[in-house]
Amino acid sequence: MDAHEIRLKSRPHGEPGLDVFELAAVKPRAPGEGELLVRNRWMSVDPYMRGRMNDVPSYVPPFKLGEALEGGAVGEVIESNAAGFAVGDLVLSMYGWRTHATAPAKAFQKLPSIPGIAPQAYLGVLGMPGLTAWAGLTIVGELKADDVVFVSGAAGAVGSLAVQIAKLRGATVIGSAGGPKKVEWLRSLGVEAFDYRAESPVDALKRLAPSGISLHFDNVGGDHLEAAMRAARPFARLIECGMIARYNDVGAPFDQRLFMLIIGKRLRIQGFIVFDHQKQMPEFLAEIGPAVARGEIRAEETVVEGLDKAPEAFLGLFRGANLGKMLVKL
Amino acid sequence: MDAHEIRLKSRPHGEPGLDVFELAAVKPRAPGEGELLVRNRWMSVDPYMRGRMNDVPSYVPPFKLGEALEGGAVGEVIESNAAGFAVGDLVLSMYGWRTHATAPAKAFQKLPSIPGIAPQAYLGVLGMPGLTAWAGLTIVGELKADDVVFVSGAAGAVGSLAVQIAKLRGATVIGSAGGPKKVEWLRSLGVEAFDYRAESPVDALKRLAPSGISLHFDNVGGDHLEAAMRAARPFARLIECGMIARYNDVGAPFDQRLFMLIIGKRLRIQGFIVFDHQKQMPEFLAEIGPAVARGEIRAEETVVEGLDKAPEAFLGLFRGANLGKMLVKL
Repeated sequence: MDAHEIRLKSRPHGEPGLDVFELAAVKPRAPGEGELLVRNRWMSVDPYMRGRMNDVPSYVPPFKLGEALEGGAVGEVIESNAAGFAVGDLVLSMYGWRTHATAPAKAFQKLPSIPGIAPQAYLGVLGMPGLTAWAGLTIVGELKADDVVFVSGAAGAVGSLAVQIAKLRGATVIGSAGGPKKVEWLRSLGVEAFDYRAESPVDALKRLAPSGISLHFDNVGGDHLEAAMRAARPFARLIECGMIARYNDVGAPFDQRLFMLIIGKRLRIQGFIVFDHQKQMPEFLAEIGPAVARGEIRAEETVVEGLDKAPEAFLGLFRGANLGKMLVKL
Repeated sequence: MDAHEIRLKSRPHGEPGLDVFELAAVKPRAPGEGELLVRNRWMSVDPYMRGRMNDVPSYVPPFKLGEALEGGAVGEVIESNAAGFAVGDLVLSMYGWRTHATAPAKAFQKLPSIPGIAPQAYLGVLGMPGLTAWAGLTIVGELKADDVVFVSGAAGAVGSLAVQIAKLRGATVIGSAGGPKKVEWLRSLGVEAFDYRAESPVDALKRLAPSGISLHFDNVGGDHLEAAMRAARPFARLIECGMIARYNDVGAPFDQRLFMLIIGKRLRIQGFIVFDHQKQMPEFLAEIGPAVARGEIRAEETVVEGLDKAPEAFLGLFRGANLGKMLVKL
């Protein structure tokens, strides 16, 4: 059996290079009582993984040096020693970054087979990124139909779902993305999109939201957050989902005068983490699952082939190489 | 009649000097139909007035050059041409920074006479600063008895009430103040106090709140806000009431890495303005009025005598010259 995994070789400082990853041949363990052996078919790379590469306490523990990285994966059971799982079943797990995984069956979630839903959807639109967009907008952000919503990183895995969920709920949506291709795609969804490489977020919001925004869903931080604070209407909510602009470096320091806007405009800036909303997964799936199956929500994917290309796929996230969900096909 | 007012002579840049103020002799207008002539006895100086000296749109319009400044004042009716007001009545108005004011009766609020309550209390503990502390803590901050609350600028007009309201509600309270006299006073109230001139807020919170804070009531901004973000427990609320450290100058820029804490800790940073809570004034007075009359809340005052000294009293706020409410006796 030709099996491999990708390990964290050293901890990056600033933007990681390919040298912090190591591809290793491994021999999968045979499943013990109650265990499964799974051949992964898809794995997810996500920006939050950058945080786990640092050796600091956080809401998820750091990756360990010399061990396989972790992350969402969809695979096929190839040996089952557990009741309720048969060879050929498709399962979701956190054993990404490897071709094969042997583990107790309870670490795997059997995926339903629904017409119109591809299995890798459970790594994207119907998985963690989808729940992130949905919970952040509707629960933390209290999205209303009359909101003017600004989504930064609107063509990414989470952002591309946030804009569509906001549109579905009737809101006016503005989105930022890097490059004309992504902007064009966003416009095809009815989003007022701008290219942050060609126009500063401050200028773009002046143009696209002349009477201001009432809700900001932030995946980027930095100049996008600053622009959102400047464009915010009184009592606007600014939901902090991610700050990809800040994961690798510090960035320009923030002018403290901006903080006065928090008071003057009575802003609410609120951070959230998707793991706190796992219990709302059924409610999320009930609303978004059918919308995906009906084609009302478009789940774009950028697919890279081969485990050995996973590090490049991951690093591509920080250059905006993806439209929609970045996936690795194994 | 010897009457004077203080006018804004020029707009300050950074920290104002005494030269931006001008004391002018005036001749009060006789009250017309439905008007009162009031001799002010007390006037308030408040940090928010610094913002009104800038010619920028804000939640209160800027002061006009060459005209009398405005602010809370308590005075005595000396001529009444309005039903319901008699000579000798004590009234509250926004006609501060002047010895005399002639205006329609509806611009004045008649003050009740309550044993144990001095008339100038309506400029402090039972006025705008008191409502600010109460609404910010209890409504915006959702204060609970098991909160660990950090109040910055805890010996000021608003802060000194915030710490006492939090104590009354059963919370654990930490407060910062400048200088040993204020720290001693805070300790006499049961507050865990520290002197920010002698110890950085980051170090002090490590020492005084080793398991973190759950609620921050911020009057200062800058290094105090940074320390609060660092010491915050998951899901902490950071209520932005004021940023006196930032009214006159920009201050050191904020390290953007701190913003990542907003996400990781799911912080809620929320600004508010007391004017949005005027409708809760009766509820506030019903809780806090009796507590003041019973002596359960101590309303400290720092009193400066004479209208000509009002500019110095105002500038003293930014040096922390006041313990409790800074007042000018006219």
